[in-house]
Amino acid sequence: MKTLFKETTFLTRKQLDLLDITEDVSSFVKKCKIESGICLVNSLHSTTAIIVNEHESGLVEDILKKVQEEFPRSAGWYHDRIDDNANSHLASIFLGHSKTFPIKDGKLVRGTWQNIFFLELDGPRTRQVLFEAIGE
Amino acid sequence: MKTLFKETTFLTRKQLDLLDITEDVSSFVKKCKIESGICLVNSLHSTTAIIVNEHESGLVEDILKKVQEEFPRSAGWYHDRIDDNANSHLASIFLGHSKTFPIKDGKLVRGTWQNIFFLELDGPRTRQVLFEAIGE
Amino acid sequence: MKTLFKETTFLTRKQLDLLDITEDVSSFVKKCKIESGICLVNSLHSTTAIIVNEHESGLVEDILKKVQEEFPRSAGWYHDRIDDNANSHLASIFLGHSKTFPIKDGKLVRGTWQNIFFLELDGPRTRQVLFEAIGE
Repeated sequence: MKTLFKETTFLTRKQLDLLDITEDVSSFVKKCKIESGICLVNSLHSTTAIIVNEHESGLVEDILKKVQEEFPRSAGWYHDRIDDNANSHLASIFLGHSKTFPIKDGKLVRGTWQNIFFLELDGPRTRQVLFEAIGE
Repeated sequence: MKTLFKETTFLTRKQLDLLDITEDVSSFVKKCKIESGICLVNSLHSTTAIIVNEHESGLVEDILKKVQEEFPRSAGWYHDRIDDNANSHLASIFLGHSKTFPIKDGKLVRGTWQNIFFLELDGPRTRQVLFEAIGE
Repeated sequence: MKTLFKETTFLTRKQLDLLDITEDVSSFVKKCKIESGICLVNSLHSTTAIIVNEHESGLVEDILKKVQEEFPRSAGWYHDRIDDNANSHLASIFLGHSKTFPIKDGKLVRGTWQNIFFLELDGPRTRQVLFEAIGE
């Protein structure tokens, strides 16, 4: 059995930002030379999320708008007394810090309209995402 | 280590539909003859989700109602200019395209009230779900 | 390849309760003596969730408040005719019953502000969580 890791650094540009990291993940899997297995995409932060969906420019705007509507900033949360980003933490909890994918025939398995995104919820910042591939 | 895959096709009957796929997943795991490991249930679409909960007819109605309330159709999203299903994409992002389960003593591990459902958010359509079992 | 399991029982104290189980998970991983692999944290119930975020007392209150706002009790759901906890089931579906983490250098991988919580949505009760580590 093989297990390979890669920690990648992403620079986000805005408070709310969506980076398409599909190519980063799929090229990592290709280099792993794992025929069959599992790939984990794991953000190491509590104000970010990993999401999977279509990369269409209108939809990207819709995702950011929906997140802002569901988790408005400075809405009187207790955590805002310490750090004005309770909304970012709450969004991260609902959207999830990690996603798992099959590896089949040496490739990351995803549907035609399934791209992988890193969602920044409290940027701009430097962020770390850990990729892991396990299999043989 | 063994890795087995099965791609299953599901036909959904309505725009919003909930299919109980517990038997499909647990019979796949049984046939794999993997004593200990992990099972991935992965939808290959961006307007569907995999969810886990009790199969009670009233609750099934509640789930569909909650999804409609949180993600109403034709609510003026940018993506609706291209394809009138932004709400389906947004629901898929919040609910997730994939779930992971332990395999123990040759069986899929789930609680008494944990059934596995395929949630159609933009049907009726023909859909693909990939099951993967890894272990030995 | 090694696969190890541990079922842990948690006693929740309130209807809505958040238990920090980070130490339980990371000490389980340490004892497994798995150098590289994956760890699954799996609740076996349909009215609970596993979430990942910062352990700050104000934020803990915010999380419980947000869950109550999004999933108010006795809101006229069909399932409430059978059991007055449809809101707990719905919250569980949106937050997820399971989370997956990398194991690297014999340790559970998590970011500085990523604690693991068991979220009780229909307590107080006795609850079972299954930890699984897979790797070598």
